[in-house]
Amino acid sequence: MARQLMKGNEAIAHSAILAGCRAFYGYPITPSSEIAESAALYLPQVGGVFLQAESEVAAINMMYGAAAAGVRVMTASSGPGISLMQEGISYMACAELPCVIADVMRAGPGLGNVGPEQGDYYQVVKGGGHGCYRSIVLAPASAQEAVDLTRLAFHLADEYRNPAYVLLDACIGQVMEPVEFPSETIAPATPEWAVTGTAETRKHVITSIYLDPPDMERHIQKLEAKYRRLEARHVRAERYRTDDAEIVLVGYGIVSRVLQAVVEQLRAHGIRVGMLRPISLFPFPSEILRELAGHARVFATVEMSTGQMVDDVRLALNGRRPVEFYGRCGGVVPSAEEVLDFVAGIAARLANEEVLHG
Amino acid sequence: MARQLMKGNEAIAHSAILAGCRAFYGYPITPSSEIAESAALYLPQVGGVFLQAESEVAAINMMYGAAAAGVRVMTASSGPGISLMQEGISYMACAELPCVIADVMRAGPGLGNVGPEQGDYYQVVKGGGHGCYRSIVLAPASAQEAVDLTRLAFHLADEYRNPAYVLLDACIGQVMEPVEFPSETIAPATPEWAVTGTAETRKHVITSIYLDPPDMERHIQKLEAKYRRLEARHVRAERYRTDDAEIVLVGYGIVSRVLQAVVEQLRAHGIRVGMLRPISLFPFPSEILRELAGHARVFATVEMSTGQMVDDVRLALNGRRPVEFYGRCGGVVPSAEEVLDFVAGIAARLANEEVLHG
Amino acid sequence: MARQLMKGNEAIAHSAILAGCRAFYGYPITPSSEIAESAALYLPQVGGVFLQAESEVAAINMMYGAAAAGVRVMTASSGPGISLMQEGISYMACAELPCVIADVMRAGPGLGNVGPEQGDYYQVVKGGGHGCYRSIVLAPASAQEAVDLTRLAFHLADEYRNPAYVLLDACIGQVMEPVEFPSETIAPATPEWAVTGTAETRKHVITSIYLDPPDMERHIQKLEAKYRRLEARHVRAERYRTDDAEIVLVGYGIVSRVLQAVVEQLRAHGIRVGMLRPISLFPFPSEILRELAGHARVFATVEMSTGQMVDDVRLALNGRRPVEFYGRCGGVVPSAEEVLDFVAGIAARLANEEVLHG
Amino acid sequence: MARQLMKGNEAIAHSAILAGCRAFYGYPITPSSEIAESAALYLPQVGGVFLQAESEVAAINMMYGAAAAGVRVMTASSGPGISLMQEGISYMACAELPCVIADVMRAGPGLGNVGPEQGDYYQVVKGGGHGCYRSIVLAPASAQEAVDLTRLAFHLADEYRNPAYVLLDACIGQVMEPVEFPSETIAPATPEWAVTGTAETRKHVITSIYLDPPDMERHIQKLEAKYRRLEARHVRAERYRTDDAEIVLVGYGIVSRVLQAVVEQLRAHGIRVGMLRPISLFPFPSEILRELAGHARVFATVEMSTGQMVDDVRLALNGRRPVEFYGRCGGVVPSAEEVLDFVAGIAARLANEEVLHG
Repeated sequence: MARQLMKGNEAIAHSAILAGCRAFYGYPITPSSEIAESAALYLPQVGGVFLQAESEVAAINMMYGAAAAGVRVMTASSGPGISLMQEGISYMACAELPCVIADVMRAGPGLGNVGPEQGDYYQVVKGGGHGCYRSIVLAPASAQEAVDLTRLAFHLADEYRNPAYVLLDACIGQVMEPVEFPSETIAPATPEWAVTGTAETRKHVITSIYLDPPDMERHIQKLEAKYRRLEARHVRAERYRTDDAEIVLVGYGIVSRVLQAVVEQLRAHGIRVGMLRPISLFPFPSEILRELAGHARVFATVEMSTGQMVDDVRLALNGRRPVEFYGRCGGVVPSAEEVLDFVAGIAARLANEEVLHG
Repeated sequence: MARQLMKGNEAIAHSAILAGCRAFYGYPITPSSEIAESAALYLPQVGGVFLQAESEVAAINMMYGAAAAGVRVMTASSGPGISLMQEGISYMACAELPCVIADVMRAGPGLGNVGPEQGDYYQVVKGGGHGCYRSIVLAPASAQEAVDLTRLAFHLADEYRNPAYVLLDACIGQVMEPVEFPSETIAPATPEWAVTGTAETRKHVITSIYLDPPDMERHIQKLEAKYRRLEARHVRAERYRTDDAEIVLVGYGIVSRVLQAVVEQLRAHGIRVGMLRPISLFPFPSEILRELAGHARVFATVEMSTGQMVDDVRLALNGRRPVEFYGRCGGVVPSAEEVLDFVAGIAARLANEEVLHG
Repeated sequence: MARQLMKGNEAIAHSAILAGCRAFYGYPITPSSEIAESAALYLPQVGGVFLQAESEVAAINMMYGAAAAGVRVMTASSGPGISLMQEGISYMACAELPCVIADVMRAGPGLGNVGPEQGDYYQVVKGGGHGCYRSIVLAPASAQEAVDLTRLAFHLADEYRNPAYVLLDACIGQVMEPVEFPSETIAPATPEWAVTGTAETRKHVITSIYLDPPDMERHIQKLEAKYRRLEARHVRAERYRTDDAEIVLVGYGIVSRVLQAVVEQLRAHGIRVGMLRPISLFPFPSEILRELAGHARVFATVEMSTGQMVDDVRLALNGRRPVEFYGRCGGVVPSAEEVLDFVAGIAARLANEEVLHG
Repeated sequence: MARQLMKGNEAIAHSAILAGCRAFYGYPITPSSEIAESAALYLPQVGGVFLQAESEVAAINMMYGAAAAGVRVMTASSGPGISLMQEGISYMACAELPCVIADVMRAGPGLGNVGPEQGDYYQVVKGGGHGCYRSIVLAPASAQEAVDLTRLAFHLADEYRNPAYVLLDACIGQVMEPVEFPSETIAPATPEWAVTGTAETRKHVITSIYLDPPDMERHIQKLEAKYRRLEARHVRAERYRTDDAEIVLVGYGIVSRVLQAVVEQLRAHGIRVGMLRPISLFPFPSEILRELAGHARVFATVEMSTGQMVDDVRLALNGRRPVEFYGRCGGVVPSAEEVLDFVAGIAARLANEEVLHG
């Protein structure tokens, strides 16, 4: 397939269909609506179902049904809608049902505004719903990566029978960029555990209820084992000039584009800065951070939030290196200039320390 | 008021009314239903409103309305219902509306079962809804503390204009214990910011929408400053024989009762163990943990989950001391015996280390 | 109480409270919203509950609950909202629960517009919900009558344990007129059949389910007997110059005001015209129509619809006299001029008949 | 296609698909659920959509959407669910959107029971929703007729752009009978007025809002003209031995089977009885009834209700002949014996009259 110019949101819908997605249930909300629009346009053309549900609560429960029937299914929303889906996501995680959820983050708690932010990290990565479960979370930093990670999300959701998020912000979702789609269309087989309306599959049990506590505990431990396997096998991160970096900037999504520019500018001044961009937010690249701590002297997390992913950076490093934080929020994208100032400040402190102690 | 024998759930409802609560909107779910039942029985007697809403989504939005009108309002639910309320809680946090939410935790993600668990910690403490906001979270370990912390929750919610949770588990909620209520009934004044239907209050703006990103960012920073003030002033924790402790067990709610027994048993064998029980989960007693790290050599968190609060313990200590974890889940309460074995193992390792390195 | 100037809608809310109404559940819709607004303002002042529900479906189910608890309860809406309540109204009728519903009719099926119409007659009078049941329907033609009939609706609803409508149109609801309220406030006793949360009332059964067909049939026949008693005792209609009328115009609500003007104008020309204004639409004044058929030669129904009540006029007269129809709809109120033309045409035909046959 | 043994409910779903139905939105309720089950099984096989919605309110609104997009769409429900759909049906009628609704009537207002009844006649035939509109209503009396009338319902719904009901009772829906399907599968063209997501159809306006009263009135008159055309062209009824009948029994659906047996038995005794079975309830066979009144001396309506269709019989005959009524309800099917007694009583009165007057 040839290169096309496309919004990240549209790219996600296209990629989903090529990945075998055949059902979309959702409710429109800016800045995610183009995903639903594209799904509405193209799904019927491949015999799939697009449905605008009564509400996000209805949508996620329809996803439960479609996933139980073995259909690759997705939805897309933004903060408020994602919040409304938390009960259903917890149910799907517990019932081990695959699905893909695109969260195109907007600004603020509450209604906020439709500007870009990264304030849903806690909700999406730590589990906004009740009980002990995790979601797979992939965070693209370009329209092309939105294509690739959507495909991967469907693959991992199916393989691990677990909800998977594609977590992006209004910038990645809205800006047009050239993308290339894989030539291969996936026609997924119906999973053998699905309940497809036939006599044989009627005995398949898909449930999130375990009345006996030891049974429930065994089931939760089974889920935990799955999460550990994900951590062992599916961590993804981009290292950008980190090999000799004394300062490692950490940022995901649109922020990483700013950080890359900052790295270049500071390198031009001889400052050894690199960037680690987590691509999978769960599983989180903790091990890679610990490796980098072998030579890096300080880490600095930049987020479009008041500081959420920074917790996972700190937990990974566990005090081995200092972790600084810089954040903007409310729909404000940090400029390269302000981040440059922030990192230059860190570099200056490092230089002072060397003079004093070194 | 004389001492009475009462379930923790009932105690919460009574205490709420004495704290000036005059509206309850909710939807029943085991093991929280006695709170709603008591509210239904007693609120009308004081001229208050009890309403069983169509769903938890409706309930939380009714709370938004009542809180905006300056009425002290509460709800109660358990995991699935709390998930359904996440959108509304984010809205209330952003609009700076006080409310009290009792989450009587049950087992599991999904439907799970009605046994006790602590698996909602991430959701409740880290913010299960979208965007950058925090909730005040108080975790009682007895029916009497349920009384006291419910009253405090109303007070803090009002003072900080923020949602406050009373977070407990099915054990604390269901077991009958003697409780004593404060003799003073609070008759809260209508807050001056409330919209009460009068011509003067019509101009009061209660909103969660800030279309201009710099405005939204300023508002989020205002919220953050509030959270910092809470951390500075309202941390609550119980220290139990921690003064000379080499091993500090950390646990909240029902778990702390098991830990206390374990501390006693190990102390009888000369092992210097103590317990820190976080009472406020947000703000979290990080500073107290850091103080204890002055003399304690190892920390061990015990939770009825696969490990959620342990993150906050690790973030507080930031690698200064090792943090072990022991958890049970699915409705299983850890026995004193198994926790004793777990802690004895830690004590043995410490003793070995002393021999080897000491 | 002194005379006041008031919209019909506001008058209904005031009258309801004086009639002992202590709960209002609803969802605003033009042109009925002033009823909810007034209820919201005044109910809390008398210790009552006003609640804006999530939807009309939620509102009617809350009414079921309040009515079952023995509280005088009302709602108000317009066409689309009344449609959404049909399931609940059928349930309340079957469970013999009293309530008062104000339907301030707007124009059109669908969204239509907010102009006045009488197109909900079939729905409201014939039973828009499923199964064999009837609602009491009272149709005021002035703000004062809105006061009086709202009070009567509560009385009849309670006495007959059945839903009662106050059916009016946007004109009657919106126009300000002087009204006088009864000086006596009704403080209704809790009905003995209510379920009030006490141990004794726990055994009261309020249900609409009768699994055994003969039981269900007996229950439906019991309801029917009640409807027959209503027809025997509570028919209300206004006769306006009908004593010697050869032509009897039939119209309710705002239409009757036009008809009254037309009667006057035609009487001035010596034409013997009168008007029968049904005040109770169920029970319908069939017997009065049959009496008038003793001397009247022709009947003419005028409605703001395509012809709905005219069926009940025809059923009452059963072919004994011709029944003509004139209707406007869509928010158009028929002018006195056009109705005059219509009636003058009838008068001319009567005159011709006399010449030819008489 | 060969003859098959099938429940009426299943036959409706099969027939719908052969008639080009490609979307089904609904919520299960006894005794209609087999229609949804069959639709769920077969629609996906022809590339269609089956969706169990969150509620009947959601289902009817999804139908609005599908119909607006030019897809042949249906739902099925029973009394309570049909009530919940009334708002949406009024919207579809006003927006001139075709759809087919199967109402498999159960007993009672409220929850009632799942036995057969005909108590939804008022709701379905007179318009249970708000405003001046009518639905096409076809009432099969056998599984085969369920096949034929479902096909016709789709045809008429499309031709007249109006909702059409297939109205049956639990007996016709549940009993297995041999049916034969038409060999021809209909592949309906997308109507030219549909909004199909293309640039050209974006300008098509499908709405139920007409803010200007004269516009709304014109639109309602356009709908009325359509209803008159339906009355002129599409009346359907079965005459059974009515040619020389002195007594004409009138009944639809399952009742007509009882009446047919009664006719045979009375004819064996020389009593001239016949039956008129309305097949289309709207348009109603008023003209045929008037023709029969030329020779028949008395009419007797038998219904499984307290008397609803009998109004339309009386309106048709307008006093020209007496109209008797016999009804059972609550899930009780009248036996041939009791109806025989009822009709024999009428016959005896006729004989007496002849003796006295004749």
